Amino acid sequence: MKVFIKNIKDYVGQEVTLEGWLYNKRSSGKIKFLIVRDGTGFIQCVVSKKDISEQEWDIIDKLHQESSIRVVGKVSFFEKAPYCKHELTVSKFELVSNSQEDYPISHKEHGIDFLLENRHLWLRTPKQNAIMKIRHRIIKSCRDFFDNKGFVLVDAPIFTPNACEGTTELFEVKYFDDSAYLTQSGQLYMEAAAFALGNVYCFGPTFRSEKSKTRRHLTEFWMIEPEMTYIDLEDNLKIQEEMVSYVVQEVLKSCQDELKILERDTTKLENIKAPFPRLSYTDAVELLKSEGSNIEWGSDLGAPDETIIASKYDKPVFIHRFPTICKAFYMKPDPENPDVVLGADLLAPEGYGEIIGGGQRIDDYDLLLQRIKDHNLPEDAFKWYLELRKYGSVPHGGFGMGIERCTAWICGVEHVRETIPFPRTIYRIYP
Amino acid sequence: MKVFIKNIKDYVGQEVTLEGWLYNKRSSGKIKFLIVRDGTGFIQCVVSKKDISEQEWDIIDKLHQESSIRVVGKVSFFEKAPYCKHELTVSKFELVSNSQEDYPISHKEHGIDFLLENRHLWLRTPKQNAIMKIRHRIIKSCRDFFDNKGFVLVDAPIFTPNACEGTTELFEVKYFDDSAYLTQSGQLYMEAAAFALGNVYCFGPTFRSEKSKTRRHLTEFWMIEPEMTYIDLEDNLKIQEEMVSYVVQEVLKSCQDELKILERDTTKLENIKAPFPRLSYTDAVELLKSEGSNIEWGSDLGAPDETIIASKYDKPVFIHRFPTICKAFYMKPDPENPDVVLGADLLAPEGYGEIIGGGQRIDDYDLLLQRIKDHNLPEDAFKWYLELRKYGSVPHGGFGMGIERCTAWICGVEHVRETIPFPRTIYRIYP
Repeated sequence: MKVFIKNIKDYVGQEVTLEGWLYNKRSSGKIKFLIVRDGTGFIQCVVSKKDISEQEWDIIDKLHQESSIRVVGKVSFFEKAPYCKHELTVSKFELVSNSQEDYPISHKEHGIDFLLENRHLWLRTPKQNAIMKIRHRIIKSCRDFFDNKGFVLVDAPIFTPNACEGTTELFEVKYFDDSAYLTQSGQLYMEAAAFALGNVYCFGPTFRSEKSKTRRHLTEFWMIEPEMTYIDLEDNLKIQEEMVSYVVQEVLKSCQDELKILERDTTKLENIKAPFPRLSYTDAVELLKSEGSNIEWGSDLGAPDETIIASKYDKPVFIHRFPTICKAFYMKPDPENPDVVLGADLLAPEGYGEIIGGGQRIDDYDLLLQRIKDHNLPEDAFKWYLELRKYGSVPHGGFGMGIERCTAWICGVEHVRETIPFPRTIYRIYP
Repeated sequence: MKVFIKNIKDYVGQEVTLEGWLYNKRSSGKIKFLIVRDGTGFIQCVVSKKDISEQEWDIIDKLHQESSIRVVGKVSFFEKAPYCKHELTVSKFELVSNSQEDYPISHKEHGIDFLLENRHLWLRTPKQNAIMKIRHRIIKSCRDFFDNKGFVLVDAPIFTPNACEGTTELFEVKYFDDSAYLTQSGQLYMEAAAFALGNVYCFGPTFRSEKSKTRRHLTEFWMIEPEMTYIDLEDNLKIQEEMVSYVVQEVLKSCQDELKILERDTTKLENIKAPFPRLSYTDAVELLKSEGSNIEWGSDLGAPDETIIASKYDKPVFIHRFPTICKAFYMKPDPENPDVVLGADLLAPEGYGEIIGGGQRIDDYDLLLQRIKDHNLPEDAFKWYLELRKYGSVPHGGFGMGIERCTAWICGVEHVRETIPFPRTIYRIYP
């Protein structure tokens, strides 16, 4: 019977067939140890010369890394076995297709450029397997969270006539005889959708033509962007902390094997439960000054500032009420102090930086029009967006969470380029 | 207590608060009937002059369509009430924000160009609401189907250096000092992912720069693309029919209200259960000829051909083993007859056309290289794709289902432009 390695523990004492690839092998006299992977897991298969034909033994002897193979054997529990605490005692072996001798990714260290150039093969290693599975669980948990609350998924368009937050950092596309831009955010469209369908979210790729080469930047990344009507900032933050807690707890529940492969300190994740601390931007600046930073009120927080603040907490922390001048044109000013906006960023712990940005949107037509003019944005392109304030405006807000940054934090990997299957950066669109 | 209209049946006899928008109103002496929508549903609210203040009555009198409002009232069951079989007897009324007099989408007929120009407002109508909710359910059911089977979601990249099926119909993007193309399909990447993670799928937007203006074409549309290792064509078709049946039955279970708004004949959907009929391309051509078509063996099927074939069945039908010359370079020839490929298209019933295309991929290095050369594709750009056949090739296959065409069929709407929130066509990227 064909089984997947992830289910192997249900077949102890039984003979099963595995179809997969040879990840590694070593020999010890008349015994060979094969590490076989099938995408669902890795397992040690033990081959004794006496148990198989001479022909099979010879084939195994000449096998190269990543050959595709079919093995039949009996499953046993073995606490000390690598990868999955179970072993297969092989009784039959079949080569499906040999791998060439020059398989590029050996079991030694490789440089990052080399690994990225071979991303299609690098994905086969245990660590990259684990990150992809956790990424999947994070995405699924986000969707489940909002589906269970009755939010409607409304996919935002990728081709847009105008920029969400201005016209810099946009990718331009030749669109028949015209030009289009790739979306930076689905938010404006989600505002229209929320006025039509109540609570909504979009979840898709977004694009920024940033020249930055930091460990937190990709040109193509995925965001989930919920938008809610008839809410205030505090309602918004509560949904965010509830969602992040849910996602982390779901990963802890479903991905223990993967977290172990990544050597993630899970005690730090177990602690991630709502409520999260809230710190005003103004208080954050005071805190930073007391730590020796020379930040001045009115400047945006830099990555080192975020790290200092995050280090004070063992949970994600909201920084709220940023200066109006730091933030996008659609952010609603605080009625109690129009110099700041009713918005917040959520900083992940352990120095992983901002994972969420969000807040209340301007719901007054005249103020929004003024802001569009102040920011020199093309009024025509925003005609539809303005109309949302003309025909039954309501208080509303939402947020966007970047999936790669969130995955980097939860996996404990330093660079976002490992958290997306095929990373795109300023210098790389291959493979 | 604030409630959503979709839950109103749980509050019969109780006083509740609704927050939403005025969809329609009419007067009958000292009674006004307001149709209120909140995104989750539509409900009739009955206002008697005697129950509210003179000021509230005056405000209601001057209310324009789509004003945002808050109403308090008692819920009662009323079989003949429009939309949801329940009514609200209003005791308190509050205007949140008035709508301007010139709200564009009145309750009369509008032309399609006008509606598309006002898509941000058109989405507020019952029919468009219903289509969006069914679309969401279809997407969720697809994801659930594969998640429950242990498939791993692997997002394919949007920026690609090369075309999946050739270089025509591609959107080109200025990528810093270079060029990139927007993906037409994630399939090639899913093949790499399947060799790394076993059974996988991607689900994202794809792009075709087609000049066609038919009711089945968009420049931006969403596809789910599963890819499986160690399978054959029949395994592949079985998964497809199981998935389509699951999706249709889930929509029937969860979206009865929406299907009713769309006046969909649901008896036709109830019948959609695996297995689906299979017809070879060669037999299909014979069938078409017997119906008077002048199709010749070797030509692709046109939309009218698909309609004739589909009309013979009350379920979706697989057309398998198309001529090799009709299909993409990566399709595996049938070992029993290399003039045809081990692939199939799935045609929806009722003339909705092809919703799935899929099949076995070439797993032999030399044959794939030959095909790349035959199709004049740039060998360099496909280096990584070829390498999948160099390092442990296995039999594998998959398919792609277009979400908009599937939604059009299930909703019974003629044109795919209504099945995506913000449709993009050759002439439209606004709003």
